[in-house]
Amino acid sequence: MSVEHEHRGFVPTRRLEALADGVFAIAATLLILDVIVNGAPLSAELVRIWPSYAAYFFTFLSIGIAWINHGTVLSLVDQTDRTFLVLNLVLLAFVGFIPFPTRLLATHLFDADAQAAVLAYGITLFFASLFFNAIWFYGVLGRGLLTHDADAHLVEGISRSYRPGPFLFGSAVIVALFQPLISAAMFVAIIIFYLVEATVFAKGAEPN
Amino acid sequence: MSVEHEHRGFVPTRRLEALADGVFAIAATLLILDVIVNGAPLSAELVRIWPSYAAYFFTFLSIGIAWINHGTVLSLVDQTDRTFLVLNLVLLAFVGFIPFPTRLLATHLFDADAQAAVLAYGITLFFASLFFNAIWFYGVLGRGLLTHDADAHLVEGISRSYRPGPFLFGSAVIVALFQPLISAAMFVAIIIFYLVEATVFAKGAEPN
Amino acid sequence: MSVEHEHRGFVPTRRLEALADGVFAIAATLLILDVIVNGAPLSAELVRIWPSYAAYFFTFLSIGIAWINHGTVLSLVDQTDRTFLVLNLVLLAFVGFIPFPTRLLATHLFDADAQAAVLAYGITLFFASLFFNAIWFYGVLGRGLLTHDADAHLVEGISRSYRPGPFLFGSAVIVALFQPLISAAMFVAIIIFYLVEATVFAKGAEPN
Amino acid sequence: MSVEHEHRGFVPTRRLEALADGVFAIAATLLILDVIVNGAPLSAELVRIWPSYAAYFFTFLSIGIAWINHGTVLSLVDQTDRTFLVLNLVLLAFVGFIPFPTRLLATHLFDADAQAAVLAYGITLFFASLFFNAIWFYGVLGRGLLTHDADAHLVEGISRSYRPGPFLFGSAVIVALFQPLISAAMFVAIIIFYLVEATVFAKGAEPN
Repeated sequence: MSVEHEHRGFVPTRRLEALADGVFAIAATLLILDVIVNGAPLSAELVRIWPSYAAYFFTFLSIGIAWINHGTVLSLVDQTDRTFLVLNLVLLAFVGFIPFPTRLLATHLFDADAQAAVLAYGITLFFASLFFNAIWFYGVLGRGLLTHDADAHLVEGISRSYRPGPFLFGSAVIVALFQPLISAAMFVAIIIFYLVEATVFAKGAEPN
Repeated sequence: MSVEHEHRGFVPTRRLEALADGVFAIAATLLILDVIVNGAPLSAELVRIWPSYAAYFFTFLSIGIAWINHGTVLSLVDQTDRTFLVLNLVLLAFVGFIPFPTRLLATHLFDADAQAAVLAYGITLFFASLFFNAIWFYGVLGRGLLTHDADAHLVEGISRSYRPGPFLFGSAVIVALFQPLISAAMFVAIIIFYLVEATVFAKGAEPN
Repeated sequence: MSVEHEHRGFVPTRRLEALADGVFAIAATLLILDVIVNGAPLSAELVRIWPSYAAYFFTFLSIGIAWINHGTVLSLVDQTDRTFLVLNLVLLAFVGFIPFPTRLLATHLFDADAQAAVLAYGITLFFASLFFNAIWFYGVLGRGLLTHDADAHLVEGISRSYRPGPFLFGSAVIVALFQPLISAAMFVAIIIFYLVEATVFAKGAEPN
Repeated sequence: MSVEHEHRGFVPTRRLEALADGVFAIAATLLILDVIVNGAPLSAELVRIWPSYAAYFFTFLSIGIAWINHGTVLSLVDQTDRTFLVLNLVLLAFVGFIPFPTRLLATHLFDADAQAAVLAYGITLFFASLFFNAIWFYGVLGRGLLTHDADAHLVEGISRSYRPGPFLFGSAVIVALFQPLISAAMFVAIIIFYLVEATVFAKGAEPN
């Protein structure tokens, strides 16, 4: 984004970034409200509630990785149109939803409700990855919002890394119907894959 | 907004945008705090609480559309004055209020309290649309805050789309006194109208 | 604030503005969490809880006016130093505190706890106005952070309007020890005075 | 940060700042939700809950000092890479976590759970200071993200002030195993040290 590319009468990329930063910051931080202790002694309680710490930090980092990916896409976009904005709003709605199923997962992963919790979590991530793809392939590439000086290597890298997303998350959702714990492990693996993969494809285009 | 238009001693448009982005992000994300499950089994609970998902996503997208409209107006404004800022504060207060009646609507739409819930929701949207009009017709056009290079087609399009707002929302409020469900359907229709209409009038002025 | 004035190694004004916008947005919107209904029928409940609406809108607008004043001051500042930042943090802490006593005031204004509620509210506003003065007279004027092209008329106007603040709020606090309701009326009057006065002194320096 | 240094395809420093400002603002303001009164008379209650005020203001100012330090570091950085972003996300996760142990500390400092509360608080601050060091020594200095015109005096000052952090906080954590109250006093002392020390080393490089 640069100031001279702003068109009068259109929501500038700058403001989409600001709204996104707000939603990402709220969604990442919100689970701290669920880190609560009831009971005594405090020392035993603080150990007992470790799943709520795990949920908080895992959510913060997952949403943080999504924020990095979203930021990479927006850094390649100079202008917005209404379709692009609405697709982003839907993605942000799913991002803001993530704390809810993550909390379920942290509470129920090892009890009889594991399947329902993993399904709720997986379906949320599936839709988030679907709208990441919609934003990139339809919104940015399909509608010509890509900036003129975008690095072809990087654009190809993003396409290659986004495309399998819905299939990976979708497969893990289907596995959850039979083996919830294996499905949960798949979700963690896919998130780590996205962290590492993105680091690798970004290497070639790294500045300096 | 561009940097060189900032006047010393006046809150720049840039900061109104930042406050607005914060309030919009909080208001849009806040209803996730109401998506909670109490009871077992989790799978049945997750199905039973579908109105809270509906409320969350509907609020997120309604507030998102309001954010797009607000962003379009501010992209046509280079400077602020105190009247314009105060009108914006009142609008933002109503935006921040929206999660409350939306939650009521989601909870009570099909019970004996439907009328009260629809009225609470409708009156909030009526005032929001009233202050959108006040900002545009009195704040921007009436007080000469419009930027010099504003596209006349776009300005006319915004005027045409804003003017009927209070009448449409006001009519739906009156209908709520007799037929709450029909009134609720009217509110959804008006919001969809604003999404589509805005896309249509913006078409002519789209960059490239 | 303008980009070319940023000094390496110092938190730029731009970031203080962003933190402030975040805190103001959260503080203004937070009271919506206290607008809740418990009981039936909904229509009667929605009427009964009117003090929570009043608290929400009154807080939103009071904090909004403080935001306008804070924004006016920062628009006259090009650089920060640590003292200025710490004074601003203390002010923001009091701004973020405002929702708590406002809620007390809305709940207890007409019962036996009115005095305690008015005192809690008044002491918070007294400290906020004290730190507004500290930021302006010590932070901006005393330490030479004022931008070189600041309008002398406007600077004088801000000084004239800030100076009586702690005395006005302090007097209302003292009155609360004897007549809570009169004190509450004084607080509303002082806030309205700040809204109007600021509009008046700003008139002379209005752009165009 | 300046606009012309933004590289396409990389999350610009500007956006990391925006996300950080959001998380810092939320974390600083969140404890106001714990300032609640239950019981009567209000005047006695308002006195009794003073630890919640102390926790709120102490958290706000501690997080504010961390924000100043983080802002100083980012003002010396022109570009980001994925490692730097992920290190920052982890730091922000710990910043967003601070309200939880601070609340414990405020509630339990003088009862039988003091040790557990001080340990929870201290371990959180220890990790925050560890990641401040990782960001500075590995992320900024080690990976060459420092801007070319960075003041050598200031860079040295930051290194000198960050290096002892984990040792100081770590020592206080160990003391908590034996003397919780002395440990709590050490944490307050270290935070005040960081406020003062930073003011001193920044003096030499102060603009004008």
